[in-house]
Amino acid sequence: MILVLEPNTDPQGADWRILERQLARLPGIQYRVHREVGSEVTLTEVYLIGNTAALTVEQMQVLPTVAKVVRVSEPYRVLGRHKQGDDRASSFEYNGVRFGQDTLNVFAGLCAVDSRESVEEMMQALQAHGQTCTRMGAYKPRTSPYAFQGFGASCLPYVFELAGKYGIRVIAMEITHESHVDEIRAALQACGNPTGVMLQIGTRNTQNFELLKMVGKQQEFPVLIKRGFGITLDESLNAAEYLATEGNRKVVFCLRGMKTNMGDPHRNFVDFSHVPVVKRLTRMPVAIDPSHSVGTRARAPDGLLDIFHVVAQGVIAGANLILVDFHPDPAHALVDGPQALLLSELRPFLDDVAIARDGYERRTKLAREQTAH
Amino acid sequence: MILVLEPNTDPQGADWRILERQLARLPGIQYRVHREVGSEVTLTEVYLIGNTAALTVEQMQVLPTVAKVVRVSEPYRVLGRHKQGDDRASSFEYNGVRFGQDTLNVFAGLCAVDSRESVEEMMQALQAHGQTCTRMGAYKPRTSPYAFQGFGASCLPYVFELAGKYGIRVIAMEITHESHVDEIRAALQACGNPTGVMLQIGTRNTQNFELLKMVGKQQEFPVLIKRGFGITLDESLNAAEYLATEGNRKVVFCLRGMKTNMGDPHRNFVDFSHVPVVKRLTRMPVAIDPSHSVGTRARAPDGLLDIFHVVAQGVIAGANLILVDFHPDPAHALVDGPQALLLSELRPFLDDVAIARDGYERRTKLAREQTAH
Amino acid sequence: MILVLEPNTDPQGADWRILERQLARLPGIQYRVHREVGSEVTLTEVYLIGNTAALTVEQMQVLPTVAKVVRVSEPYRVLGRHKQGDDRASSFEYNGVRFGQDTLNVFAGLCAVDSRESVEEMMQALQAHGQTCTRMGAYKPRTSPYAFQGFGASCLPYVFELAGKYGIRVIAMEITHESHVDEIRAALQACGNPTGVMLQIGTRNTQNFELLKMVGKQQEFPVLIKRGFGITLDESLNAAEYLATEGNRKVVFCLRGMKTNMGDPHRNFVDFSHVPVVKRLTRMPVAIDPSHSVGTRARAPDGLLDIFHVVAQGVIAGANLILVDFHPDPAHALVDGPQALLLSELRPFLDDVAIARDGYERRTKLAREQTAH
Amino acid sequence: MILVLEPNTDPQGADWRILERQLARLPGIQYRVHREVGSEVTLTEVYLIGNTAALTVEQMQVLPTVAKVVRVSEPYRVLGRHKQGDDRASSFEYNGVRFGQDTLNVFAGLCAVDSRESVEEMMQALQAHGQTCTRMGAYKPRTSPYAFQGFGASCLPYVFELAGKYGIRVIAMEITHESHVDEIRAALQACGNPTGVMLQIGTRNTQNFELLKMVGKQQEFPVLIKRGFGITLDESLNAAEYLATEGNRKVVFCLRGMKTNMGDPHRNFVDFSHVPVVKRLTRMPVAIDPSHSVGTRARAPDGLLDIFHVVAQGVIAGANLILVDFHPDPAHALVDGPQALLLSELRPFLDDVAIARDGYERRTKLAREQTAH
Repeated sequence: MILVLEPNTDPQGADWRILERQLARLPGIQYRVHREVGSEVTLTEVYLIGNTAALTVEQMQVLPTVAKVVRVSEPYRVLGRHKQGDDRASSFEYNGVRFGQDTLNVFAGLCAVDSRESVEEMMQALQAHGQTCTRMGAYKPRTSPYAFQGFGASCLPYVFELAGKYGIRVIAMEITHESHVDEIRAALQACGNPTGVMLQIGTRNTQNFELLKMVGKQQEFPVLIKRGFGITLDESLNAAEYLATEGNRKVVFCLRGMKTNMGDPHRNFVDFSHVPVVKRLTRMPVAIDPSHSVGTRARAPDGLLDIFHVVAQGVIAGANLILVDFHPDPAHALVDGPQALLLSELRPFLDDVAIARDGYERRTKLAREQTAH
Repeated sequence: MILVLEPNTDPQGADWRILERQLARLPGIQYRVHREVGSEVTLTEVYLIGNTAALTVEQMQVLPTVAKVVRVSEPYRVLGRHKQGDDRASSFEYNGVRFGQDTLNVFAGLCAVDSRESVEEMMQALQAHGQTCTRMGAYKPRTSPYAFQGFGASCLPYVFELAGKYGIRVIAMEITHESHVDEIRAALQACGNPTGVMLQIGTRNTQNFELLKMVGKQQEFPVLIKRGFGITLDESLNAAEYLATEGNRKVVFCLRGMKTNMGDPHRNFVDFSHVPVVKRLTRMPVAIDPSHSVGTRARAPDGLLDIFHVVAQGVIAGANLILVDFHPDPAHALVDGPQALLLSELRPFLDDVAIARDGYERRTKLAREQTAH
Repeated sequence: MILVLEPNTDPQGADWRILERQLARLPGIQYRVHREVGSEVTLTEVYLIGNTAALTVEQMQVLPTVAKVVRVSEPYRVLGRHKQGDDRASSFEYNGVRFGQDTLNVFAGLCAVDSRESVEEMMQALQAHGQTCTRMGAYKPRTSPYAFQGFGASCLPYVFELAGKYGIRVIAMEITHESHVDEIRAALQACGNPTGVMLQIGTRNTQNFELLKMVGKQQEFPVLIKRGFGITLDESLNAAEYLATEGNRKVVFCLRGMKTNMGDPHRNFVDFSHVPVVKRLTRMPVAIDPSHSVGTRARAPDGLLDIFHVVAQGVIAGANLILVDFHPDPAHALVDGPQALLLSELRPFLDDVAIARDGYERRTKLAREQTAH
Repeated sequence: MILVLEPNTDPQGADWRILERQLARLPGIQYRVHREVGSEVTLTEVYLIGNTAALTVEQMQVLPTVAKVVRVSEPYRVLGRHKQGDDRASSFEYNGVRFGQDTLNVFAGLCAVDSRESVEEMMQALQAHGQTCTRMGAYKPRTSPYAFQGFGASCLPYVFELAGKYGIRVIAMEITHESHVDEIRAALQACGNPTGVMLQIGTRNTQNFELLKMVGKQQEFPVLIKRGFGITLDESLNAAEYLATEGNRKVVFCLRGMKTNMGDPHRNFVDFSHVPVVKRLTRMPVAIDPSHSVGTRARAPDGLLDIFHVVAQGVIAGANLILVDFHPDPAHALVDGPQALLLSELRPFLDDVAIARDGYERRTKLAREQTAH
């Protein structure tokens, strides 16, 4: 249940304090406050959580400052695409880059930072090909406690400095603990905020709700959340909603394959057929991660790598962001080398993506024309 | 283990009879003979099955008429794409239509024949749009014994007659028992063979090895075999190999989604990322069945149906055949109406496919050029 | 929809012929007739299949000889356990052995017959331990066409003869084609019917509906049908219902593990937690197949094989039949040797089963007593 | 790679500092130190993590204080059951209760604390039936952000106070963030440590490695870690190993069913066939959670609930701990009411468990006797 308060309700005011006291008395009910501060008006929503079935709309309506009471019936209340004329935004801008259900951004980069040299070679190549986004892994969750876990905060200074040097505007970077957000913020400030960071929640933490809440509370960095393996799509979309209910609505949802042996010989079962589904159910831009889905550099008889093929599949169905592993020297990469693309493949990759994107645009244009008749 | 016999070995000759007697004596060994009758030469291969580990190549080499002994080490011996220079054909022709790993054929049609009128409307529309292939279901395997099971042989006469009338050259038709092949053959002959039939093995019969052997023994009709749900891709490809070892090498392999709730809200988990995989592992043309994979007429916010999107995904990665459900009146279809496309969507569908196919051709052309440098 | 006809309706009579003619005229409707011939009365049921939603009960009620019209609303009409006082039998007898939801029968034997010697050693051991049932595989469906497929009909004479010699009353034997039923019947007759056969439908044929219908039409042999992997339990129970609607109600349902890597390191994911579920949903005796579920001879630190543990799990929850692989010389078995138990383990196996069965009986006795208070 | 140092190596000594400096210079290598402080001797192990393939045993052997160098080849180095004579302990004691691969402890209790009254009724019933362990959920991870998330720290004072009052020695309590450990510790101290707590890591956090590391660093509370759904058993066991490498070896591993529709109509696919597997692969006591596995109160025709049946299955195969939901008033429980057992079912439940445990003990006794011969 959501209480939409009167515009410009004062969070220090007497009415607000009365409201708080009344809410605190409701048995089995917790609440969470979301404020959207605009230039002219501040909107406040109070989310009631718990046994709300026991409450009536009438009972809530009479509380001070309450303008409207809404029972949450549709799923993904904040990020969802609701029935009948949901014209809320399906895009956002961050550090000069726009992310929406209508854009396409490529995040080619290192799965795991392993040296300053790798980072520099990668970013140099990106700049040479007109790219302004990348992925850089500093904190790596690994299945075995005996495997390399990433350089963590220690690599951030040179990663950010080089990003500035080569004109990178947004770096997707996985975090596995809320303290990493502070480390990232501090490292950015220390070198003068030369770039931006999109926080990435990996598939092992999709339902790490405490992390989601902490990351959702800050609105400085946008968040890319990966679909969880082993759970339904609905559960993963609810996880994204955790970010949004805490206040951060700059959220990208990323498909990365599901873990089942039915996907063999790929490492995971590629799920990019869900690109149009996520766009229908929510207003989030949809990312695809072909590297972890496919997990190999196998090549079809037509000369194209499987990784290229699944990227084309995602893009021709409208994917908005591609998270893809490259490495200057895959044989010596510390994590997931076998699936990384070579720097010499960056040009062919971008050209291949462009053909698929052109196909998507022709398809939707034709659909609009046919509907118009 | 495979014994390749000397060319033109006489199946009535004395040597052959000696060979047969010797093979019969091998403990725990069965064998199967495959003859390829060419215009100038007849080739014979004998497949030894069972405990062949106990046999030596030398021991077999000295048997009469044996020219060469090959231990089967690579999987999918007949249909597979083997390492290093496998230049065996990856296409075949049937009734004037070519099916290969380089072609694209659309089989739009009825999931289940429910009346002569539906069939005629469908075929008329196909002809009007230049199509010469279709799908028509007469024998329907149904989960519940209390559901409609298809009209069976009784609808074949008008289906075939109308196919002739509207210039249809190949009908994909599921069979669930070997007797259906005889019924189809008889019905075709009865009306003067006005069209051709591609026998279809459904996902519930992918490992019905007795059916595969019977269908493999005949070489009159090509066979489209669907991937089995619940089994690995490797097991499904082995099932296709059953057809081939019996002699029928005109085999198309069809992806149709895997059954798991991870595919929700689609009916099945769309598996078209395996298009390049099947082309790499075997020389079979690869079909996709978007209707049963997706199972709904849900539409993305960009105006395109999910079914259109997954078809585009299959085609841009090189799919060779599309099996797709249409119906003149889906609301009254007896089987799987909800997922059928409307006849008015045939033109948009074909246009959409053409864009994706164009994308695939541009992608492979570019890949060839880049490799050439 | 089911038409229950008046008792002793004459299948040659005029009324019946009129009924048949009327049913033939119903559009989109097929029907199937089931006759239960008792000592005093013959009952006839007509199952209407297809678009029965278009029919009314009233319309059917007035047809000649129709005593009652029942809309099928509950699943598994014939084999199901329906709500409120379903007191139909949940057991049957065959060749002097009783199979029910309250009995426990052990079918230890050979996964695949590989020699007369193996069969004799096995049966001798069974007799020595008081067993009268066994499993013997003659027809083996194999994933690869290049693997040993069983000796088929050729081994039946000595298998049946030895069964007679060692007092075996029922042999569970997989069939993969309807012709195998004829071969089995002929071989039994040829040696004077010294034993009985329970036909077994394997997991690859669970939805081979043509085979189910053929096997369901005969009522001579009972049928054990295995759960299909890759399909839901509901779909597998519907497959069993196919047997029953054709007339054969002597059906045992067998759990054999589901195929998913989540079951690793076992070969399949053991599903014996569904023993009470199948007993609640249907009136079929429930079998378990620990050998194919577990697939290894791994042993726990407590000294017991995993195979023993999962058998105990099935039995303590009420399993009624155990299908388990033994072999006199597993190292040389042609099929699935690694999972076979040794003849020296037969005594410990039976003792272990007895402890678990005793546990089940104590548990249900206690439950009855506690309910009685 | 593990460096076993000389006994009583001084962590302040010169040798140690030299060693540290040398380790810091190894490229791509991180390390972690584990000290086991005994009454007479302190043992120190240094785990090298990362690209250890580049290191040689010889190179490490010569470093100061290094007594032995071990390449980690066997999985689950700390918790695993290694080949050949692994006689390390497979049990531990906590607050007067012993947990081992040979014991059986029942943790009946509330899935989620919802009122002081529920807690008191529950604990009273436990004491009346001689129980000294329970489960009490304060922090509840919920799929939807709009659902009740538990009372958190606010309920701890009365939960612990009542535990003391009713003689409860160990409470299993899920935590989802490291701060919860501090809250629990503080609340225990505030009321004079009247009881003990076993920290519980839920299935959504099985691969929340940061949480595992934090919880592993403290050795005050033992930890029960649940198997992760959607990942392999091997991956879940590796997650448990994270706890151990940080120093906490009081770890219980809990099976709780896998999430797949193949388990329908149960909520999850019950995986208690893995009880003997986990005991073979590791030295951890194995817990089972029947409530979340089964997820319903469905009852078999023999009068026993499915929950009782799967518990019996786990126990007869050697399960060591049962985590089971009870509630004084399930209809009004805030979380997972439908699957909770009634307080009136506590006696029947314990009796049923006792029969299964007796079965397990008879089975292993017999196995030992038969081996002895």
